Amino acid sequence: MKTRGNLIVLSGFAGVGKGTVLKSLFETHEGYAYSVSATTRAPRPGEVNGVHYFFVSKERFEEMIEEDELLEYASYVGNYYGTPRSYVEEKLEDGFDVILEIEVEGALNVRKKVPDAILIYMLPPGARVLQERLKGRGTETDEVIARRMKRAGEEAQRVSEYDYIIVNYDVDDCADQLDALIRSQRLRVRSNLPFITKLQKELKELT
Amino acid sequence: MKTRGNLIVLSGFAGVGKGTVLKSLFETHEGYAYSVSATTRAPRPGEVNGVHYFFVSKERFEEMIEEDELLEYASYVGNYYGTPRSYVEEKLEDGFDVILEIEVEGALNVRKKVPDAILIYMLPPGARVLQERLKGRGTETDEVIARRMKRAGEEAQRVSEYDYIIVNYDVDDCADQLDALIRSQRLRVRSNLPFITKLQKELKELT
Repeated sequence: MKTRGNLIVLSGFAGVGKGTVLKSLFETHEGYAYSVSATTRAPRPGEVNGVHYFFVSKERFEEMIEEDELLEYASYVGNYYGTPRSYVEEKLEDGFDVILEIEVEGALNVRKKVPDAILIYMLPPGARVLQERLKGRGTETDEVIARRMKRAGEEAQRVSEYDYIIVNYDVDDCADQLDALIRSQRLRVRSNLPFITKLQKELKELT
Repeated sequence: MKTRGNLIVLSGFAGVGKGTVLKSLFETHEGYAYSVSATTRAPRPGEVNGVHYFFVSKERFEEMIEEDELLEYASYVGNYYGTPRSYVEEKLEDGFDVILEIEVEGALNVRKKVPDAILIYMLPPGARVLQERLKGRGTETDEVIARRMKRAGEEAQRVSEYDYIIVNYDVDDCADQLDALIRSQRLRVRSNLPFITKLQKELKELT
């Protein structure tokens, strides 16, 4: 009996280390699938259709919106980005835990469509650490950093709408903790109704 | 900042191996406290007050019921058994995850008083395995075994009222899985409101 996977929605401030932690999670743990987004923007050199994104036309994307084929979508600097429901559904059925890395608004929209989705927010150990990490990248101006910190402050107000938080003290520890959290969600009663029903039937037959 | 522990309610059919798994959990993992019950029955040789049970008089027990000092209680062959709220509360405040091993009725009563309690049901891999384990004990008559199997069949109908199930394929694996499940509950947003509030404040101060 293959158990259906869980849909995991992961959010976090810019600079908190989501990408690095997910890289560690995917490299060192099995059973995960990363949700591939659909977008109307043009592929960049090296980007592969179906791997980095599903590249679609504006017309096709708007059809997907119409037909409720997306779990969530947003438009950003003139292009659409969204999560195709069918790809996620297929991976879940195959038993993978599917990770969706999106922002607060999208996350809460996903919850409306998939009430069983598990919403996790990744946090830094403290505000100062976040600031240092953003500075440490060395690629952003002070102004951009200040804007990101302000944005983090706003987003922090929404964290309590999530199910779980995970604090990124150390990349590999955080990936391990994330793995333990996601695996333990497989023990939810609602994820195991076929097993429970089977056992009930067996017990009835034996008595 | 010491994080408050979680109240874990563990139930399972007779013979499923709750005692053995908890023994393994307590021996190989830290941070757990076992809830000590109060009872009106007389201590048996070797039983220590405050370790095995809190031994109290019938009058004192009934006072505890009156004063709502118990999370749940039941009477069994003429004696009362119950869970003192103050002991559990103290251990939770000290940061321990407190494990309460009780039956379905008691478990659902605890949930009413402690909505944050996490209800876990331990199941055997299959009905046949349970029957073999009960036989393997070698201490029970066929009649008793048949009665326990019948009882398991009845209890199985209530499993879907729990939050999580855990399947006891192997004692040590099951203890590890239980540990991972309980630890991951510490990541619940509602268990981390002080940390979230502190971070929100820090972010505000830095921007």
